[in-house]
Amino acid sequence: MAAGPGAGASVSPAPRRLSILGATGSIGLNTLDLVAAEPGRFAIETLTAGRNARQLAELAIRFSARVAVVADAAAYAELRDRLAGTGIEAAAGAEAVADAAARPTDIVVSAIVGFAGLAPSLAALGATPVLALANKETLVSAGPLFLAAAQRAGTRILPVDSEHNAIFQVFEAGNADTVSEVIVTASGGPFLRTPKSELAAVTRDMALRHPKWRMGPKITIDSATLMNKGLELIEAYRLYPVSVDQLSVLVHPQSVVHGLVRYRDGSLLAELGVPDMRTPIGYCLAWPERRPTTVKPLDLSAIGSLTFEAPDRDRFPCLPLAEAAMRRGDGAPCVLNAANEVAVEAFLAGQIGFLDIARVVEATLGKIDGEGGLSEPDSLAAATELDGRARKIASACL
Amino acid sequence: MAAGPGAGASVSPAPRRLSILGATGSIGLNTLDLVAAEPGRFAIETLTAGRNARQLAELAIRFSARVAVVADAAAYAELRDRLAGTGIEAAAGAEAVADAAARPTDIVVSAIVGFAGLAPSLAALGATPVLALANKETLVSAGPLFLAAAQRAGTRILPVDSEHNAIFQVFEAGNADTVSEVIVTASGGPFLRTPKSELAAVTRDMALRHPKWRMGPKITIDSATLMNKGLELIEAYRLYPVSVDQLSVLVHPQSVVHGLVRYRDGSLLAELGVPDMRTPIGYCLAWPERRPTTVKPLDLSAIGSLTFEAPDRDRFPCLPLAEAAMRRGDGAPCVLNAANEVAVEAFLAGQIGFLDIARVVEATLGKIDGEGGLSEPDSLAAATELDGRARKIASACL
Repeated sequence: MAAGPGAGASVSPAPRRLSILGATGSIGLNTLDLVAAEPGRFAIETLTAGRNARQLAELAIRFSARVAVVADAAAYAELRDRLAGTGIEAAAGAEAVADAAARPTDIVVSAIVGFAGLAPSLAALGATPVLALANKETLVSAGPLFLAAAQRAGTRILPVDSEHNAIFQVFEAGNADTVSEVIVTASGGPFLRTPKSELAAVTRDMALRHPKWRMGPKITIDSATLMNKGLELIEAYRLYPVSVDQLSVLVHPQSVVHGLVRYRDGSLLAELGVPDMRTPIGYCLAWPERRPTTVKPLDLSAIGSLTFEAPDRDRFPCLPLAEAAMRRGDGAPCVLNAANEVAVEAFLAGQIGFLDIARVVEATLGKIDGEGGLSEPDSLAAATELDGRARKIASACL
Repeated sequence: MAAGPGAGASVSPAPRRLSILGATGSIGLNTLDLVAAEPGRFAIETLTAGRNARQLAELAIRFSARVAVVADAAAYAELRDRLAGTGIEAAAGAEAVADAAARPTDIVVSAIVGFAGLAPSLAALGATPVLALANKETLVSAGPLFLAAAQRAGTRILPVDSEHNAIFQVFEAGNADTVSEVIVTASGGPFLRTPKSELAAVTRDMALRHPKWRMGPKITIDSATLMNKGLELIEAYRLYPVSVDQLSVLVHPQSVVHGLVRYRDGSLLAELGVPDMRTPIGYCLAWPERRPTTVKPLDLSAIGSLTFEAPDRDRFPCLPLAEAAMRRGDGAPCVLNAANEVAVEAFLAGQIGFLDIARVVEATLGKIDGEGGLSEPDSLAAATELDGRARKIASACL
């Protein structure tokens, strides 16, 4: 990309400041892979991680970050020691993550997993013109609150999730009134063909073997239960001006078509690609331009066949649970998400079975409903309170 | 759509003036179907037809056209008589078609088949801000000339061909430098699985049975030989800022994915839909907005599977002939098109066999090359001369 000697006085633009919340996860590492591919294009402002101080320190040093923050306060000493003498500022704790997210920058990739990503994402809004959001729980648990704050801050939200990024690429904002359907595709996960009678015996290891996408454990389990698709429907509901009835899920095992937008003139626009998160992340990093990535081009004739089918809501009850929560449109999505986080953690820890995940979510929603007062959270405090209340109930349902 | 009584003082916009060149063909009739679906939205300025005076008169009366022109002068008396007393102006002859095309209007649909569409399309450029082009031969035979004239006139060219319309929908003009490939899909035609040894025995009736699209006879034969796809590659080469090496053909028998644009970030954007020309025509009529049509929505889970394969250039030599003509970039595409028109007419008349179509095209290109001077036509006269010369040679090759 650089001009050779004597090629004239072309000046490279100043590097774009980039902060990554959740740098050691799958999205964070893919983002840094793209950063490494274009030296000089980005200057890393902040990197945060949950508890892996060693990897965070390595990344911070390799990418010359200004600040590195680990959420787990117990990991502070290790981070500080590893960064000693590098000039990189070290900090720890949830508040330090939010503070670091609020440092002025040009683009933030918000890739913390779960409800924990909400506060840092909110904190980032005032500090960046562009927020690439991979943390779907932010939109599920506190969508209206978050989007209103983004609008006040003038921050553009770009979706990183491959499905929503695909939809973003083909959703014509000027023709939103002619959109009749937004379709989120689903690989179907590892149990697409597993009979209902065998689902109870599904183990952690079986559920962690996703056929198409390499992701972190939480989202991989969510993919196996189809809860991930339910959360994505709610995410799409928040991101695009469509009604609940205009959102649908289409099972597409090859994971090549990532999302589709149907227009009333008969056109269905879609984004296709190999399952590689560097494409949607690269799209967000370059938006509104596009820049080359090293992602392997999709070869449709080599793949030969793309298949599509309706999801099975009977075998995968997490999907209709999420759909019902979306339809209610109050605090139910926040409760659904909290209960699911508790249940997935318990499943990964071997405490409950695969089918118990849906059971815990359903029971939590039922119990909290009986208590009354399931209103849409209108502040971070309200969302945190509702999330915490749901977690307590869910834990009791394990 | 209409406001009910007492619904307020909303005023409908003035009807948009629309002229259709080739009103009695498949594209023309589909356009009028869309016009009929939205009474008051369009005012028909001019309708033209080749020789079917009866149908042209019926359409002109039904749609209250101002002018009706039949290209075949021998059909004038019938047209005049049928329009007597209606107030609709009648005219006949090739020049009258071009004159009618030059009448000021708001949008022209140029849907005359073959080289005959070039002169009227050129004539229309100064008279309309938007020209919806279904006549691919215009771009094949005289692309640079036509596009330069369109630019001078400030007329926006919108592609009606389903493949090019699909590509238009997902080609981001602002990111043209990141486009790495433009893919035109092909149904493969009725002989996709026919062994080479059986192609010589293909009859007119067999070739006219297209598996997916209902179109006129010329384009249906072109689909069977894959010449249509070759012409479409050249058309795409003229329409989009890509190199010859960035254009490709992908066989997709279901004809659901109509065209794709690949970006260097890993995204492949596509337009999908049922094979129904009312979608791309409706897109052109509404552009840059979209408006609902009555086209049946595509149901991907009902279709189940979409397949893709590379085209077979050995069994379908018209495709590599067209590709070679495109690569030369001089008058070869014009000659290719003229020879193909002569050969297809002869095949439809039972004068030559199916495989003779490619033979005639190849022989014509070879002979005219031997004569020297195969330069890109820089005027309508030069294009007409080259087209005529090629037709003579092709006729001698039959």
